[in-house]
Formats: sequence, structure tokens, C-alpha cells
Amino acid sequence: MKIVEMRVTPVAMADPPLLSSYGLHAPYALRTVVELVSDDGITGAAETHGGERILEQFERARERVIGRDPYDLAHLHHELDAMFGASAPLPATASGTTLPQQTLALPGESASDIALRIFGALEVAALDLIGKATGRPVCDLLGGRIRDAVPFSAYLFYKRAGGGGAGSDARADAWGEVMTPEAVVAEARQMIDTYGFGSIKLKGGVLPPDEEIAAMEALHDALGPSVPLRIDPNCAWTVDTSVRVGRKLAGTLEYLEDPTAGLAGMTAVRQALLGFGIETPLASNNAVTAFADIPPVVRGDSAQVILADHHYWGGLRAATHLGQLCQAFGLGLSMHSNSHLGLSLLAMVHFAAATPHLTYASDTHYPWQDATDEILEGGRVTFVDGSVPVPAAPGLGAELDRDALARGRERYEACGYRSRDDEAEMRRHVDPNWRRTLPRW
Amino acid sequence: MKIVEMRVTPVAMADPPLLSSYGLHAPYALRTVVELVSDDGITGAAETHGGERILEQFERARERVIGRDPYDLAHLHHELDAMFGASAPLPATASGTTLPQQTLALPGESASDIALRIFGALEVAALDLIGKATGRPVCDLLGGRIRDAVPFSAYLFYKRAGGGGAGSDARADAWGEVMTPEAVVAEARQMIDTYGFGSIKLKGGVLPPDEEIAAMEALHDALGPSVPLRIDPNCAWTVDTSVRVGRKLAGTLEYLEDPTAGLAGMTAVRQALLGFGIETPLASNNAVTAFADIPPVVRGDSAQVILADHHYWGGLRAATHLGQLCQAFGLGLSMHSNSHLGLSLLAMVHFAAATPHLTYASDTHYPWQDATDEILEGGRVTFVDGSVPVPAAPGLGAELDRDALARGRERYEACGYRSRDDEAEMRRHVDPNWRRTLPRW
Repeated sequence: MKIVEMRVTPVAMADPPLLSSYGLHAPYALRTVVELVSDDGITGAAETHGGERILEQFERARERVIGRDPYDLAHLHHELDAMFGASAPLPATASGTTLPQQTLALPGESASDIALRIFGALEVAALDLIGKATGRPVCDLLGGRIRDAVPFSAYLFYKRAGGGGAGSDARADAWGEVMTPEAVVAEARQMIDTYGFGSIKLKGGVLPPDEEIAAMEALHDALGPSVPLRIDPNCAWTVDTSVRVGRKLAGTLEYLEDPTAGLAGMTAVRQALLGFGIETPLASNNAVTAFADIPPVVRGDSAQVILADHHYWGGLRAATHLGQLCQAFGLGLSMHSNSHLGLSLLAMVHFAAATPHLTYASDTHYPWQDATDEILEGGRVTFVDGSVPVPAAPGLGAELDRDALARGRERYEACGYRSRDDEAEMRRHVDPNWRRTLPRW
Repeated sequence: MKIVEMRVTPVAMADPPLLSSYGLHAPYALRTVVELVSDDGITGAAETHGGERILEQFERARERVIGRDPYDLAHLHHELDAMFGASAPLPATASGTTLPQQTLALPGESASDIALRIFGALEVAALDLIGKATGRPVCDLLGGRIRDAVPFSAYLFYKRAGGGGAGSDARADAWGEVMTPEAVVAEARQMIDTYGFGSIKLKGGVLPPDEEIAAMEALHDALGPSVPLRIDPNCAWTVDTSVRVGRKLAGTLEYLEDPTAGLAGMTAVRQALLGFGIETPLASNNAVTAFADIPPVVRGDSAQVILADHHYWGGLRAATHLGQLCQAFGLGLSMHSNSHLGLSLLAMVHFAAATPHLTYASDTHYPWQDATDEILEGGRVTFVDGSVPVPAAPGLGAELDRDALARGRERYEACGYRSRDDEAEMRRHVDPNWRRTLPRW
């Protein structure tokens, strides 16, 4: 079997004005769909990060893909490592801050992740292709499913009013403005009612910490102690603030995610909390984005829960390796998410299905996307009681809707966005002088 | 696809009178061949440890295997864990020594390894079956081959005269007695001439350390500095002796394998050698036999090279996880071996083919086995320049020779051995009072 064609399609999807320490989500989020077509006419597909830079990277990789056996992934990985380098310098950022490099870039969007990200997408597409060629779901290619449904967490955001999109493509805002504890609770209830989620994460780092503490306490009071809660300020806090929040929310939080930047800071937060007898685990996908980060995490006890993401850890098999590694070291495991469509969600589901040591419900931005933008035949992936049933169909378990994909591409062409820059968006819509300052509080 | 039949065949093969700190190899080594037959008539096979106990364990597992989809390995693993327990107490040993448990049992033959060992064999057989059903070599099911040939190391032993087998089944002794440095060098030359190996391991722990040092120095002098050398006394030495040997052989050894028992002892050896400026890595398959051993290894710097063995680490996928883990932690990776036939060798080859981070030529006992006993169609697996070419044929790349398998079973029935007990064999043939005493020197 040979790959005879690689199709790379940029798509844009409406994205609501969600807030984080990075700034403000633009009206459109960008994704890329990669398709590999075999000489016997079977197509496998995967979804990954979007924007013009990754399109260029896929073009550079093209010569390594065409003519290759889709099972020949080890060589592909090796060749992409050689092509893109494993430790390319990071590009300068607009804000010119001098923070540690790892805290600057969005996870999976640093230059050092290029090879892993390109490989990860091609691997998923190849596994989808292999699954379709052999009639097996992708999780079976990873060792078989240990669970038939994969639990996700509600992913709450502070947000401005608005539902994403722009102009004639604007979407109705199903959520409204969310800037108060009461609105956060309402958002949680709405998301639980719609999807059945059994645990809750709030994207913090947006309001002063006391306001976010109040939101978490309001969630705890409203939903009761049986609903696990998490907060993720994406490094917006100092060590002292992180400890103060950790103490205030002791007993309320299932885990505390990336409260402060860098492994040393995380270690300091952990030690201080333990000193107060607080064992709330720290989770990370900011300080921990690659296998090279794990040894210092272990040495420093910097994080107790790793948020895996096959999109930038190097694909689904790499993610299963991470699962075994976390099990060996007694680290918890959950999944990180970016804004994504159903094809990424299904890949996450197959990873989770094949990974015994998945110890928490995983993140997903999926509820924030709109059915209009889904690119899968049959439309949106369905949640049942907060979980996604693991597909039994071959490959990832879905086919691309060609018309929807074409509309996604048209939306990409028309929307004007070519990279994600939440800081610029914040300047445009909220405060012309806004900068991502870490730590802010 | 469903598994409709599981065939478990014990076999025995002639084994020369090889010496180690465990004692003396019996005239026969025992192995088990497991075959899984699918409802569409395809058969997958694997080879693992032998003896009557593992036969009983396969029988206990049978109900979990029949009717199962061969891709459904995650559930199988889980169910075998539940059936056999992950931490069953070890049986009392004949010698009644009070050494740490981990140093008593042969690697992969402790009670705590049962589930991993049974699963590992069934996983390999299932992958062989899947490979044959899909027309792909097993390495492709693990992510594809990163190398087309897998290098092995010559595995030298001290030995008594004799070629294995007994009575009318006795084999010609191609090697003679090997108890002196000169004989070790001759054994090395013979093995290099026959197989083309480019590196050398001596199973030590047999003679007083100065004699084994002399043998290593003789190998170094005879073969030159371009041939990497290793010695593995299987925990026969005290920390002080290990350090003394490490100092004497500094610059001669590629790595020093399991010089002393237990992780604390290994750490002490490592620290002392580093104190003398000697960076010879320590390798282990005695102190390190499972993922649970890795965190203390990392914390204590107890070993710098891990010897993987899919037979007791839980199969081929688990071994690939170990590869990624070793890469993340900067640990070297090689492969451990027991006495084995070609089916085990091929599984080792497929693991190695799919594992980028295999940093050393691997162990194999294969040269000590006799072509008469091979159970593969076409006979023995061929080495080219010390390496085994990775098969391109589906599955493991071989079919069982039914007649040879039946002869192996007859040999098992007739030989009288039902478990491996090198200590008893030593008492029978060498010294009626011999005991495995660790440390001996």
C-alpha cells in the first residue's frame, strides 16, 4: 500500500469570544485537515492545528509522504525530525516578553514542536487509512479498547457576549456574557444539561483571583461535592497567588492546572501546598508539553497530572507511550484540548479508549463549536452522559463531509485570520494596550 | 474476527551445560508455544517461557481467550491482571535464602510476573495472527520499522564440555569446555566467525572475579578496542567487588550488567565508580524487571541501560512503551534473553525494528540452540553480520513446522524436566552442596 495523494485543507470555524490569560479568542478558530489517499483508493484523515505556518510545514513534508507505505511511520517520524529539527529556536513574540520560552507559545504551537505536530497529524491520518483498509477502528490498532465511552469535562470559559463568526457568518450566542460567578454557574448548568458532563473545568487567569475563587465556590455550592472541579489560569498567577488560591479551594478542586509558569514555579506551589497539608494535584500542559519535560517533572514533583495531547506529543502511539509512562511514575493522566472539530475529538476518543491509565475526564472545547461548522458526515459527534461512545466503525469512525469541508475552507479563505493571536484580539476588542503579562496576579 | 482455538504446546530443546551464578543449565531448556486460531482459519503463534507451571497458567487463562477478538487486547490484559494478580507473593525457594525477592527468581519467572508473561505471549500470538490476517509484518503493527536488521551481541558462557541433550538425543559439543581466558577467546572467535557479531557479552559470576577480569582483558586484547564488551555476573558480586571489577575494566566495558543485587546495591556501585571518574554504564534485567522498577532506578541512578524483554514486560507494545520511557529519561536500551527458539527471536526482532531508541546490540542465547530443535519451517533464523534481517512476510514472518513442533513436544514429554532449576543441576553434576549464594564474591 502506498500513499499517492496528500490533501491539506485549511478550515475556519466560528469561535465565541472566550477569554483566557492568552487574551481573547478571535471570531474564527483555524484548523487543518490532512488526508492521505492510498493507491487502492482509501482515504484516511486527521485534524490538527490551523493557520498558514502549518500549511507551509505540511508542504515541506509532502515529498516525505507521497509514495510512502502508510504503515511506514517510524521512518517518517525520523525524517520529519531531521527536516524540522527537534529544538528549533522559537520565533520572537509580538510582546517581546522575557518569560521562559515554554510559557510563551500555545502548547503545540512552539517551533520545537513542529516535527511532532506534523508527524502526529500524518500518523492519525495513516491510522485512519489503515483502519479503513483493515476494517478496524483506530483504537484496535493501538491495542484495543479498554472502555466503550470516554468521559469529558465541561470546559467553562469567561466570555464576552457573542457566539463567534463575523458579518453574515455570525452565530447566535447561546451562552451570553459570562463574567460573574452567577453567569459561570449558569454556563455550567447549560453545558451539563446539554452534554451530561460529570466534571467541570473553568478557564481562569481572566479576572482577579478572588473573583475566580468566588466562581469556583459558587460552582461547588451549586453543583455539590459530587461534581469534580478544576481551574486553569494558564500561568497567570505568581507562586504566592497560586498557593493562596490552592489553600482557599482546598477540598473543592479535583486538580489545579498550570497555576504558575515553569516547572520551578510549579514545584514551589506544590511544596508550599503540601506544607499546608493540601494534596490537591497540580496538572499541566503548559510546563509539560513533551517527553523531555517528564524527567524534571518527576524530579521536582512539579505536576501530578499530565494533560496529554496527541496533536503535539507526536501522535496516538506516542500518547499511549505517555500513558504507560504516567502509570509507571504514578502520575495522573488527562487530555488537553484546543478549539477543534469532530475529527480531532474522535482521535482523542480512540487514544482514550486504548489507554487504561486515563485517570480523569478529559478537556474538550467541542461544545464551543457550532454544528454549522462540523466537517463530518452526519454532523456533530454525539455525547451521552458527558462521554463520547467509542466508534466501532473502521478508522476514526467517520467520513468527511466534502461540502462541509469546502465550506470550512471558504470560511478560512474569507475570514482573514492566518494565525492565532489572542493578544492582538484582546487589543482590538477590549484594550488597545493589553498585553499577556505573566504572572498577572 | 474471533479466536476459536488456543493451542499450548510445551517443547524442550537441547541446551549445553552453560554456567552462571544461577548454577548450571540442564541438558534441556523448556519453552512453550502458544497458538491462537481465528474463526477464519488463520493461526498466530508465540513462544515464551517453559515448564509445567506456565502450562497451568495458560489453562487458567483459556476461558478469557476463546471467543475473543484478537484485537481486543486491552480487556485481555485487564482480565489477566485480575485473574493472576499484579503482586502475588513469591513461592519459597529451595535454598531458602533471605535475599531481596527480586534477586531470587529468574527474570520473568517470579510470581508477580504471571499476568504480564501470559499476556505477553498471547499478545505476540495475536499480533502474529493480525499480521497474517492483514498481510503485514508485526513491526508494522507497532508503528513501522526504523531499521531493516537488528544487531545482536555474542553471548559467551563459561561451560562444561558437552553440547546439550541426553542419551540418544545428545548433541555434538561444538564448543568444548570453556573455563579459561583462552577458551573464552576461542569461544568468542568461533561465535563471531559463525554469526558475525560485532559486540561481546560474557555471562560471569561463575569464576572468582579476577579470573573473569582476566577473561575480559584477554577478549579486549584479542579482539581489539573496536569490539564492545560486556560482563554480566547476575548479582554474584558485593558492591565492593563490583566497584573493583568496574575499576579494573574501566575503558574495556561498554556496560557492566547486574554486578550486584538490588537497586540500592546498583546505586552504590554507580556512585563509587563515578567517584573514581568511571562512567561505565550499569545495565540491568535483574534489579529492573517491570515498569514499577523504573521510578526508583531514575531516582537512584541505579542503572543507565535497561534490558527489555517482551516476554515478561507484558508484550511487544509494552516493550515499545519502555523504549519511549527510556528515551525520555536518557536511559539506554537493549534486550535481555533466555534460552529460546526462533519464534521468540523473531518477536524480539520485530520489537527492535519498531523501536527507534534501541541503543545497544541485544542479547540472544540463540547460538546455543541446535538446528535440530528449531520449530520454524525452513529451519533456523539466519544472521547476517551479527544481525537478523527484519522479515517482510506477514506476522512474525515464519510458520511453525508441525513435525518439528511435535518432536519438541515429544522431547518435552521424554526429558523429565518440568521447571528450570540451575541450582539443582549444579548439585547433580558438579557439587552436591552447591547453593546459589549472593553475593558470592
